[in-house]
Amino acid sequence: MTIRPRWQGGERIHRWAPVLKVLAVLWLVLALFMAVPLVVLLIEKDPDARAFLLSMLVVLLAVALAWLATVKVAVELKPWQMFVLTTLSWVTISGFASLPLVFGAPHLSFTNAVFESVSAITTTGSTVLVGIEGLSDGLKLWRGIMQWLGGIGIIVMGIAILPFLKVGGMRLFHTESSDWSDKVMPRTGGIAKATLSIYVGFTSLAGVAYWLGGMTPLDAVVHAMTSLATGGFANFDASFGAYADQPHLLWLATLFMLAGALPFVLYIRTLRGARLALWRDQQVQGLLLLLGLVILLLSAWRSWQGVAPFDALTHVAFNVVSVVTTTGYASQDYSLWGPLAYAAFFYLTFVGGCSGSTSGGMKIFRFQIAAILLRNQLRFLSHSQGIFASRYNGQPLTDDVTRGVVAFSFFFFLTIAGLALGLALQGLDLVTALSGAATAVANVGPGLGETIGPAGNFASLPEAAKWLLCLGMLMGRLEILTVLVLLTPTFWRR
Amino acid sequence: MTIRPRWQGGERIHRWAPVLKVLAVLWLVLALFMAVPLVVLLIEKDPDARAFLLSMLVVLLAVALAWLATVKVAVELKPWQMFVLTTLSWVTISGFASLPLVFGAPHLSFTNAVFESVSAITTTGSTVLVGIEGLSDGLKLWRGIMQWLGGIGIIVMGIAILPFLKVGGMRLFHTESSDWSDKVMPRTGGIAKATLSIYVGFTSLAGVAYWLGGMTPLDAVVHAMTSLATGGFANFDASFGAYADQPHLLWLATLFMLAGALPFVLYIRTLRGARLALWRDQQVQGLLLLLGLVILLLSAWRSWQGVAPFDALTHVAFNVVSVVTTTGYASQDYSLWGPLAYAAFFYLTFVGGCSGSTSGGMKIFRFQIAAILLRNQLRFLSHSQGIFASRYNGQPLTDDVTRGVVAFSFFFFLTIAGLALGLALQGLDLVTALSGAATAVANVGPGLGETIGPAGNFASLPEAAKWLLCLGMLMGRLEILTVLVLLTPTFWRR
Repeated sequence: MTIRPRWQGGERIHRWAPVLKVLAVLWLVLALFMAVPLVVLLIEKDPDARAFLLSMLVVLLAVALAWLATVKVAVELKPWQMFVLTTLSWVTISGFASLPLVFGAPHLSFTNAVFESVSAITTTGSTVLVGIEGLSDGLKLWRGIMQWLGGIGIIVMGIAILPFLKVGGMRLFHTESSDWSDKVMPRTGGIAKATLSIYVGFTSLAGVAYWLGGMTPLDAVVHAMTSLATGGFANFDASFGAYADQPHLLWLATLFMLAGALPFVLYIRTLRGARLALWRDQQVQGLLLLLGLVILLLSAWRSWQGVAPFDALTHVAFNVVSVVTTTGYASQDYSLWGPLAYAAFFYLTFVGGCSGSTSGGMKIFRFQIAAILLRNQLRFLSHSQGIFASRYNGQPLTDDVTRGVVAFSFFFFLTIAGLALGLALQGLDLVTALSGAATAVANVGPGLGETIGPAGNFASLPEAAKWLLCLGMLMGRLEILTVLVLLTPTFWRR
Repeated sequence: MTIRPRWQGGERIHRWAPVLKVLAVLWLVLALFMAVPLVVLLIEKDPDARAFLLSMLVVLLAVALAWLATVKVAVELKPWQMFVLTTLSWVTISGFASLPLVFGAPHLSFTNAVFESVSAITTTGSTVLVGIEGLSDGLKLWRGIMQWLGGIGIIVMGIAILPFLKVGGMRLFHTESSDWSDKVMPRTGGIAKATLSIYVGFTSLAGVAYWLGGMTPLDAVVHAMTSLATGGFANFDASFGAYADQPHLLWLATLFMLAGALPFVLYIRTLRGARLALWRDQQVQGLLLLLGLVILLLSAWRSWQGVAPFDALTHVAFNVVSVVTTTGYASQDYSLWGPLAYAAFFYLTFVGGCSGSTSGGMKIFRFQIAAILLRNQLRFLSHSQGIFASRYNGQPLTDDVTRGVVAFSFFFFLTIAGLALGLALQGLDLVTALSGAATAVANVGPGLGETIGPAGNFASLPEAAKWLLCLGMLMGRLEILTVLVLLTPTFWRR
């Protein structure tokens, strides 16, 4: 197979060229956002401003090179390009975003810096940093910005790209904005602008609320960004535990994490007049029902253990919402709440929020579709009358979608099992390995066990374990199949 | 709904009557087998002979009552009756089989006795008995006989009943012997006799081999029965560890456990002239490949840890085959082999042997069919060219089968997750709860963790945990769906 690249236009262009061109745009956005901590550090006369300036220059150089190489290329994205672009954008942006962590204080090793930025961009929220309180304001801001950018990235991907690529049953969320066929660019203009406005709006709201609630302006901004992104980076080693005795802040955060985990298209529909769009959505109903039940049961359990009821409810609601929305803040070390809560939080790690939000995990709709499949199978065994037509959210459930959901579920567990085996090979105990793999792939943040639990930190893990977890976070964020398809020989055949 | 029973014949008979009639036959078989330990104990003048005599009388009384009530009823089994019969037979036989453990030494509590007999009849092999060396010969024999009966029971079920009921994709193994439609009794005569002969033949061979290998006659007989049944009860608290320094016995047992985990229909075909039937079967190939790979890797790992290579190979092969075939003997405490082996044995707990054998677990064919589904999904994403026709073992894979396999897999994990949550509620730690639920549902035997690990014992678990595990063992043995279908309202509609 000999394909000669024709970088300078012509009828036939190299298939990588459009990918590179879009990457350059994304990198440019990243470079522009690096200006925020840069300016703050310059104002504060912090010498680490140089780290951000240097990082920005490196990224801008890459942008310039990519732009020059593709200046005459039209951006025409077919599925092949979109698969490659999706994975490459998250990998390269994570790489570039890690630069300030290496160039300036805390002068992280390459491994630690990449782990921290992958964890940020994928909105996972696992950290290798200790002494976060002592970081420069610029770096605290940068950790928040990375998660916030990752958050809007995943919303756009969930609305416009994954449904088009039919990954993991997300065909179900196919809308006009994910119809790319026969078009050079999608009709996403309106939707994209509306989504961004809502994301910015919610973040501003959260920032003001946190600030009025008593946070410093910087803490309010960073936590607003990491709440809406369901990212979970906090400005304290104790995570949100720093506000453990301020229930109003915990409840505010609970609300904003939840806001980040609902489908953003439904906010748009609500604003456009369909006032009940959110409440009529089967996915939202499922998430709220699950959260309500688990919070009720665990609060009762905590009260029965002797915790004051309101205190129990506050911390249970906060930590359950944090894990299910895959944010990953912790207000207390919930792994000390006893074996039942311990097991419950292990399971909740897998769940995730709604599709088309910033949250990760398996996502509610897959559980609901699996439940429909299982119900049908039991009916089939009772009656043997063949196939049952099923609907989800008012749409007929096609074989296409169910097959995608099933394949995703299998791959999800296989990926976690494989990663956990790799972590065990590095000497991690079973609970740390399993919960570590799960928290990475589901983009939650904290695992279980003494090392990586809600009161722990990922710093002490072996290097190889950190790279495995990076792989897991990226695969989870990209709905696994988007990455795996790149490993099949058929994908690379022209 | 008013259904008047017409116990005394007539055109319309009560739908429970044929079920009861078949149960009576099965109970009679159980009662007859109670005569074996009874005779041994009488010869040895052990007063516990009375416990077996009493148990036998209780069972015979039940047989007589059931027989009287159904004497004129024709045994016509439709799917409804077969579902009810399948679950009821395993539950009632486990109940009756526990009687000698209550009536005589070791005078177990009701809970412990039922746990021990459910564990036996389902060929799981978890035990609550401590000081097994000190049990009477009769009781040792009875533990072996229970597992041996459970073993032949599951082979017959896997060949003749589950494929007909289309449970969990077992339609795939539909043969003339599982074609019950429009017939009062299946054409299973030939197959059933051949299966029984092979089972008896292998057991006799194992018994003689163990005896020649140095076991006492009683130990040889009991271990022969529990090897072929892939049950795993041993006559020692240390399980097969009592023979840890006799590699020839370990290798013999490895061979016979494997023999119990291969499809028995293939033995019949081999004997009837298809010499390569076993080796050409995709399921057998998959099992042997998996075992070969895992044994190779773990042996290398053990050698690298400093264990003498042959010693490493012997113990790795024995314990891996023991767990994968769901036998559950242990020759060493493999939970001390390091985190990698620990995680590996956790995963191996789920696998299981071949369909139509005595082994439990998810079974190899379901992994192979899942692999086909996942491969097709990745191809679909690359090419989007719709459906790919697939074959398994030379047969086309129908949607019927794949849907069954998928539903089974989901239910399998859900059952384990639910049970583990219940166990955590009893205060068990996460590893004990998860591995305990998995080892029960997969009918393996030992779990992981200090309490129920290969060197542990189930005696110290809370009562409620034991009942949950009984439920898990029965559900796993009956391929889960067979039990769950009984819980659906549609099943009970006439």
